[in-house]
Amino acid sequence: MSDAQARREAQATAIEARALRDYLRAHIPLAAAMDIDVLVADADAVRLSAPLAPNINHRDTAFGGSVSALAILAAWSLLHLRLRAAGIANRLVIQRNVMEYVRPIDGTFTARAALTTPESWEPFVGLLQRRGKARIAVLATVEYDGTIAGHFEGNFVALTGT
Amino acid sequence: MSDAQARREAQATAIEARALRDYLRAHIPLAAAMDIDVLVADADAVRLSAPLAPNINHRDTAFGGSVSALAILAAWSLLHLRLRAAGIANRLVIQRNVMEYVRPIDGTFTARAALTTPESWEPFVGLLQRRGKARIAVLATVEYDGTIAGHFEGNFVALTGT
Repeated sequence: MSDAQARREAQATAIEARALRDYLRAHIPLAAAMDIDVLVADADAVRLSAPLAPNINHRDTAFGGSVSALAILAAWSLLHLRLRAAGIANRLVIQRNVMEYVRPIDGTFTARAALTTPESWEPFVGLLQRRGKARIAVLATVEYDGTIAGHFEGNFVALTGT
Repeated sequence: MSDAQARREAQATAIEARALRDYLRAHIPLAAAMDIDVLVADADAVRLSAPLAPNINHRDTAFGGSVSALAILAAWSLLHLRLRAAGIANRLVIQRNVMEYVRPIDGTFTARAALTTPESWEPFVGLLQRRGKARIAVLATVEYDGTIAGHFEGNFVALTGT
């Protein structure tokens, strides 16, 4: 890739991150209340962040509900961007999630989403296009201060159409 | 129980519910942003509610992060009130939770917490007093419009002292 191409791609990614941030904050009031930001947003990875202050608990660490919510937003966003990149209008519904809280969070925290099994993407898209409905799992890793603070896995069902 | 006793107990429960509501909203900004209310708060049961508007998603149903957060607050509150009733100063840390979303939520929703295995309470308290640390699981049932909308299970570790 040339330097010019790399710059264009970085710029496109920054625009995508800003658009996702604005979308989430405009349509999900809790995302605005949590003061989320979008650090990375493309079809390969989504990484969101949230500051401690609006997400604090009575012990001055991050509230578990905020941590879960950030992971859910990251996971949903990854699927949404990947399906949009594939040209598939979709509706995503979360069916189940598991959240493990590894250690207390004392400051700004992030959630990075990735497919649980990347090789399941093509069969998922194929099934979604044929049947109008398919299921997929997404992992999210919560980090604080450079170390892992939580593990999330969410199961989603995607439906075609809007 | 006499009518006078029953009235006193109902009044005490209402005061406890108001105190819990004020505590959660004062110390956990997200609980205030979610506009939670406390319907029931005693050592036997905790039931919280949240209106749709501040907890809505881009599909005009309740955001999964809000649903999880309400269940976490209900579960934490039940343990907190039970330990306080037992005279045990405590710190509660959530370690893991599983949330199943059964159906979309189109209005005010509630989360009712109960111990996963009530018979585990006495051994839990005994261990907590002897060792200063013990684990327990709490269920919460999410309801909307008179039917079940979600199932939550949270695993907590309790530590004595404050």
